[in-house]
Amino acid sequence: MRQGHQSWVFPLKPVILGHAAIGGPFEAKGPLADDFDILHGDLMIGQDSWEKAEKVLLEEACSKAVEKAGLTKEQINFMLAGDLMNQIISASFSARTLSIPFLGIFGACSTAMEGLALAALMVNSQAADYVLAATSSHNGAAEKQYRYPTEYGSQKPPTAQWTVTGAGAAVVASQGRGLRITGATIGHVVDMGLTDPFNMGAAMAPAALSTIESHFRDFQLPHDHYDLIVTGDLGRTGHAILSDLLPKHHMHIPLDRYVDCGKLIYGENPNVWSGGSGCGCIATVTYGHLLRRMKQGEWKRILLVATGALLSPLTFQQGESIPCIAHAVAVESEQLGE
Amino acid sequence: MRQGHQSWVFPLKPVILGHAAIGGPFEAKGPLADDFDILHGDLMIGQDSWEKAEKVLLEEACSKAVEKAGLTKEQINFMLAGDLMNQIISASFSARTLSIPFLGIFGACSTAMEGLALAALMVNSQAADYVLAATSSHNGAAEKQYRYPTEYGSQKPPTAQWTVTGAGAAVVASQGRGLRITGATIGHVVDMGLTDPFNMGAAMAPAALSTIESHFRDFQLPHDHYDLIVTGDLGRTGHAILSDLLPKHHMHIPLDRYVDCGKLIYGENPNVWSGGSGCGCIATVTYGHLLRRMKQGEWKRILLVATGALLSPLTFQQGESIPCIAHAVAVESEQLGE
Repeated sequence: MRQGHQSWVFPLKPVILGHAAIGGPFEAKGPLADDFDILHGDLMIGQDSWEKAEKVLLEEACSKAVEKAGLTKEQINFMLAGDLMNQIISASFSARTLSIPFLGIFGACSTAMEGLALAALMVNSQAADYVLAATSSHNGAAEKQYRYPTEYGSQKPPTAQWTVTGAGAAVVASQGRGLRITGATIGHVVDMGLTDPFNMGAAMAPAALSTIESHFRDFQLPHDHYDLIVTGDLGRTGHAILSDLLPKHHMHIPLDRYVDCGKLIYGENPNVWSGGSGCGCIATVTYGHLLRRMKQGEWKRILLVATGALLSPLTFQQGESIPCIAHAVAVESEQLGE
Repeated sequence: MRQGHQSWVFPLKPVILGHAAIGGPFEAKGPLADDFDILHGDLMIGQDSWEKAEKVLLEEACSKAVEKAGLTKEQINFMLAGDLMNQIISASFSARTLSIPFLGIFGACSTAMEGLALAALMVNSQAADYVLAATSSHNGAAEKQYRYPTEYGSQKPPTAQWTVTGAGAAVVASQGRGLRITGATIGHVVDMGLTDPFNMGAAMAPAALSTIESHFRDFQLPHDHYDLIVTGDLGRTGHAILSDLLPKHHMHIPLDRYVDCGKLIYGENPNVWSGGSGCGCIATVTYGHLLRRMKQGEWKRILLVATGALLSPLTFQQGESIPCIAHAVAVESEQLGE
């Protein structure tokens, strides 16, 4: 199953049997609103804290994905989930509600593809029939934990990003109809010495480049192999940097086939500065928008590259730079796989 | 590879090719001191913060395990690591230093066996030749993050535990000489409604019970199959509770074959209250003491059950109870495997 140094090829082509995306009120005003399964009008989602609201988002994404897969939660062998909260409480508490054997994962905003890659690995190796991979973020909860109190109204620079309120989940299975996972590449940590937590896009772009390079090298693919290459949440700043870096590193990806979820989710809205971010960004865009459009035939092969900034408020305070990582998962249409 | 609902059997019996345990000054005074690879006399380990000291512990454990496996870090395909710090910074920053493709994991003190189970899964499915699994904790860093400032000198109840300053790592491989991993069971979240963060042993004991029950059911093993069953860090309180719960649930494990790492690491020292805890507890006791003694023939088959309390300071403040989990990994002597 190993392919090259840091990739996996999945000969059984595990199927994404069900997938779901849940969003908040701000996501409901974005250009991808129609591709969400549930949109909430209230940021609190009827809970008494933002953290509890995030847990509800994640639970809904999981339940909806299992339901759309035509399964019950008792049939799911393992759940892989993580989020941005300290001690990944959204994931752990959702796993308590769902009562599925649980493996907690953390890669900041790369968590979504870390989970999908491991889920495909488990299914392909027949270590599981059904695996649930999920992740979430919540704007209020993330702002509270990572930044100044919202009430301060601190100004942000144009390179800052807006944490997505949303959750996405997928059920990966050995059999059934659906899009198929053909391979994955696990990234290593890349740190270019950047220290500005309000410019994650610039910090993460080199990690995305590294994983994309490793993926094409490990699989020996032509640079135009994918109809679409999608990064997680580099935003406008990071998307521009990576678009610049790719040809400089002799990666001749057709740039009209390269998009970023942080740019897609809120369109041209200037109030989100450089774009969306958070574990919920690539998760909702993928499990809502992208996979729906793939099923409608818009693309046949896509590469999902989730990027994560592995800092904490404490490492920033202690003067550390920002270590970043990216994990990639390749998904293709059933028509190609048969 | 799947066995029962939530377990994995590893027919290739992945080998623990190298393993290492690093400890701090307090661990150096404990009864297992001779089984550590490196012991530090200074809690700061020459760094300017406890968090940076923990990172050094983890890096040393990883480097030592790779060295003892007779490998270089460039030969390791993947690193699985996590710790108790917010955003698992010890693991992420160590992965930056080591530059090995990295998958971040989090299960509080269950992380050690989550990593070892996934490492064995990857090797058994030929998704990797060599996988590094590691975890760490640091008394000063954990106290600072989770509890009152140490300077307050708050009194603790006798059920409290002492976070281990230490790190453990193992290199899992498809071939070579060493102890072998035969199976694993992934736990689901168990929450009995306990809310006292100074009594983790009581909160976690039912999760350990659940995973042990699932393990014996999934593998259909007689209750005296293992020469030793080891829990992670239930401490004296939790060890007594689990010893009581096992026969009540018709699990007739010979109780003289059941030990807990939280009890073992500091012996009868009353200054640690109920015993040791933290991700470094089962990691150092396993990768130092237990595997060494297995190689000396003391036990042939052991079951390592790492327990984790998945709370955060915030969930405690918000009045939530403590969700707990346990993951089990079975290890046996080479003599049995051949």
